[in-house]
Amino acid sequence: MKDKPLSAQKMNGAESLVHTLLANGVDVCFTNPGTSEMHFVAALDHIPGMRSVLALQEGVATGAADGYYRMVGKPASTLLHLGPGLANGLSNLHNAKKAGSGVVNIVGEHASTHIELDAPLTSDIEGIARPVSHWVRSSASSETVGTDAAEAVQAAMIAPGQIATLILPSDTAWNSGGVAQDAIELFAPAPFDQSQLAQAVDALDGPETLLLLGGGALTESNLETAGRIAAKTGCKILSEWSNARLERGAGRVFVGRVPYPIDIALEVLKPFKRIVLVGARAPIGFFAYPGKPAILTRDGAEILTLAGAGADLSAALAALADATDATTTPPAHVAEPFTPERPEGPINLDNLAAMIARAIPENAIVVDESVTTGRAFSPATKGAAKHTWLNNCGGSIGYGLPAAIGAAVACPDRKVLCLTGDGSAMYTVQSLWTMARENLDVTVLIFANRSYQILRGELTNVGVGNPGPRAIDMLSLDRPALDWVQMSCSMGVDAVRVTECDGLENALADGLASGGPNLIEVML
Amino acid sequence: MKDKPLSAQKMNGAESLVHTLLANGVDVCFTNPGTSEMHFVAALDHIPGMRSVLALQEGVATGAADGYYRMVGKPASTLLHLGPGLANGLSNLHNAKKAGSGVVNIVGEHASTHIELDAPLTSDIEGIARPVSHWVRSSASSETVGTDAAEAVQAAMIAPGQIATLILPSDTAWNSGGVAQDAIELFAPAPFDQSQLAQAVDALDGPETLLLLGGGALTESNLETAGRIAAKTGCKILSEWSNARLERGAGRVFVGRVPYPIDIALEVLKPFKRIVLVGARAPIGFFAYPGKPAILTRDGAEILTLAGAGADLSAALAALADATDATTTPPAHVAEPFTPERPEGPINLDNLAAMIARAIPENAIVVDESVTTGRAFSPATKGAAKHTWLNNCGGSIGYGLPAAIGAAVACPDRKVLCLTGDGSAMYTVQSLWTMARENLDVTVLIFANRSYQILRGELTNVGVGNPGPRAIDMLSLDRPALDWVQMSCSMGVDAVRVTECDGLENALADGLASGGPNLIEVML
Repeated sequence: MKDKPLSAQKMNGAESLVHTLLANGVDVCFTNPGTSEMHFVAALDHIPGMRSVLALQEGVATGAADGYYRMVGKPASTLLHLGPGLANGLSNLHNAKKAGSGVVNIVGEHASTHIELDAPLTSDIEGIARPVSHWVRSSASSETVGTDAAEAVQAAMIAPGQIATLILPSDTAWNSGGVAQDAIELFAPAPFDQSQLAQAVDALDGPETLLLLGGGALTESNLETAGRIAAKTGCKILSEWSNARLERGAGRVFVGRVPYPIDIALEVLKPFKRIVLVGARAPIGFFAYPGKPAILTRDGAEILTLAGAGADLSAALAALADATDATTTPPAHVAEPFTPERPEGPINLDNLAAMIARAIPENAIVVDESVTTGRAFSPATKGAAKHTWLNNCGGSIGYGLPAAIGAAVACPDRKVLCLTGDGSAMYTVQSLWTMARENLDVTVLIFANRSYQILRGELTNVGVGNPGPRAIDMLSLDRPALDWVQMSCSMGVDAVRVTECDGLENALADGLASGGPNLIEVML
Repeated sequence: MKDKPLSAQKMNGAESLVHTLLANGVDVCFTNPGTSEMHFVAALDHIPGMRSVLALQEGVATGAADGYYRMVGKPASTLLHLGPGLANGLSNLHNAKKAGSGVVNIVGEHASTHIELDAPLTSDIEGIARPVSHWVRSSASSETVGTDAAEAVQAAMIAPGQIATLILPSDTAWNSGGVAQDAIELFAPAPFDQSQLAQAVDALDGPETLLLLGGGALTESNLETAGRIAAKTGCKILSEWSNARLERGAGRVFVGRVPYPIDIALEVLKPFKRIVLVGARAPIGFFAYPGKPAILTRDGAEILTLAGAGADLSAALAALADATDATTTPPAHVAEPFTPERPEGPINLDNLAAMIARAIPENAIVVDESVTTGRAFSPATKGAAKHTWLNNCGGSIGYGLPAAIGAAVACPDRKVLCLTGDGSAMYTVQSLWTMARENLDVTVLIFANRSYQILRGELTNVGVGNPGPRAIDMLSLDRPALDWVQMSCSMGVDAVRVTECDGLENALADGLASGGPNLIEVML
């Protein structure tokens, strides 16, 4: 390896794959391998540089890759076992796709000659991959694996980030003739829509205009720019309900979110006659409800798309600030430091938000899958220490624990606070084991309301006002109650159960100070 | 409901769906619903007759539907939340498909007008469904939901059983105009291949001929017929490695399985110059390995397909017995009752098999996902009390615990013994909660070897003879060790850990006598 360029080394397909991924900056692999992936495992064994993080279910691996990308802006690889292994990871790939996260999936496949025999594990892997992937390819031979891998990384890096799925028939992994590729050239983000700039500037003329931000518009500096524009023009700013990554806390420009509950969202958006989109999409309902609108903006609202998710959002905001003469205007909505008073007594939804605001450590990453429990968290934490907030962008629950793994692997020097409902956490509960195995600095708060609480409300929303016992039973998790302390300890993560504010304050302080994984079951 | 026929009742689409499923004998629903399925939940609330079994992850629901069908021969329904909910259930649908199990998936979808808005949960549901489904349809309106549901059941019942996925846009569920359908006519199984009968009879002439059985050929009476043919003609009989359902035990005709390990399989099959297939496929390797054959039969072996999985296998075997004049011949290979001596000392793979043979209760259902640990179980248990044995047919691990749920729901008067490796059990560990919730009569044995043991062997099989620490670490589950007693108790299932034969004997006796769910962690 020392003297020859990578491309001149003799290697099998799997080795060319590992070398190529490493040369392209992909040095983390969230993995759950099987027989068809053994040559990749063997290659990882003797080629240093790839951190392999084992997951006990593939949804953990793909969700971790999502969280990882959001924090470092480069893809991790996943290693998945044929169609069913990919299938288990599919729902968190859906979430990653909706978040604009880049992921390079490596999916093993039977040897080319074996596929036609229709063995038990044979399936249409490309068919399974396509609905969640922007890019799908099956390697044709060991000679092309290196090129395929480089192009997979290239595809995954298309702004804001894409899902690339590379299927590796086992003979292409074990045959010799592999050719490792050096770093491939990446595509620049698309330019923003210059033709909309003048109109957007015209539109920004007071509180009846909303500057709606999403994706890469939510970095600290872009938010500052948006805050200047708001100060100058009097426009309002909001972010989408689900943000892949939002920089928040004292000293940063605070941006609220378009609410999830449809009636409240309609109310919040009603004043806006003009909406300028930068990295965001026009607000629509998460679901349709009988007799309610799906478009959340008022009738006749003028909607201007200055820049979509894949465009250069910093340039778009800078141009907007420039054209509105706001570049040196002090930004509006800068959050003042604010620490709520220490609450006492039994934990409820209000004092919970206060305690989280008090606990967030400087520079923490908050992974939020708190669903109904968390609806008060955003305003309550605006003046907390500076932190990064990650939402579930695809609506498939079970994203939180895995994303916390990915964030912690990406940023070993930052603390991760994972806020999750009990129902959500169960989908990918195997995550706890990986947190223990990797000794990740993650504090998990399980909000134990012992029901799919959101669905109680949704029954009403769809017109079922008075659900009977069978319906309520289908949404309840209290028969039997889950014991999260035992659950967590069974997978090697220390845990404690709290019912009072004092207990939660202390547990948060201890957990965040511990430097390793820990779980707090918050009884609601 | 009392006077009018179903079709004349006024109802919404969801109500027509529930009525139609019930009229077609589908009266169990393994469910994990979301907002888009709330009208179905509401319909279940006020229409009696459907047993709803809640799962905390969709792989539990689909695996349960697989086990259920194998035991009663009619489909359960599943209720899944849009594309991601279906995706979570996909790998066990893959297993069900390979097992020839019929399943009716009901997958919620956004309202028709909402799909084009590309909300967070929007995905290509048909695309996700197709790789694991024989039949996929999206209902066009509330008026057609009833017909669609009846045809879904019809499709699921095509022999030996098929995966039918019905996608229900939420407006087709909530709109009125639903028309419930009565029981639909089912398709008869295909006739066996009469044209092969004479050749098959000619081929059955001694120990160089194998009668290879699969699927519906493995009922008690069909095995008896096969035993008569073997006695008369001197042919050998075997089943496939993976059997959806095999009747076994003292007094029944014993049939061995084509082994999984490739070298042993080649050895076992080498003597056979002629192979007659009844419900089985020609033996192939589970995986391809470098330099080893994928076809497991000897070169030039004559292979006759008398009846495929979807054919009338009882008729095929009866015709074969008739043509070989074996109808009254006493069957060969009838298993004698045999109870191994009670072993002592630490548990190992040999005495484990003996203890399972001793413990199997009369009429039990054994769900087997024991992978490497279980390879000695088949011969050891041939003389045990009569029982039914279910294998994983699709190779996607995580089938065992869910299938045990389905078997227990299907047969409340039978005891279920679930044998599973620790690695396998983790994929769908949420199953334990459903077992507790439904108080199912399931005894789970977790074989805790704390590794993906099968992959250690597979590394060698693919030519990696001397794996290094990084590779071994990727296949090890001992860092941290899983505590299965805590895990199980956390979800409401009593559990005990055993290391000695005495402890396992006692735990098995207690657990099987308990009448409810319980788990035994067997330390290996």
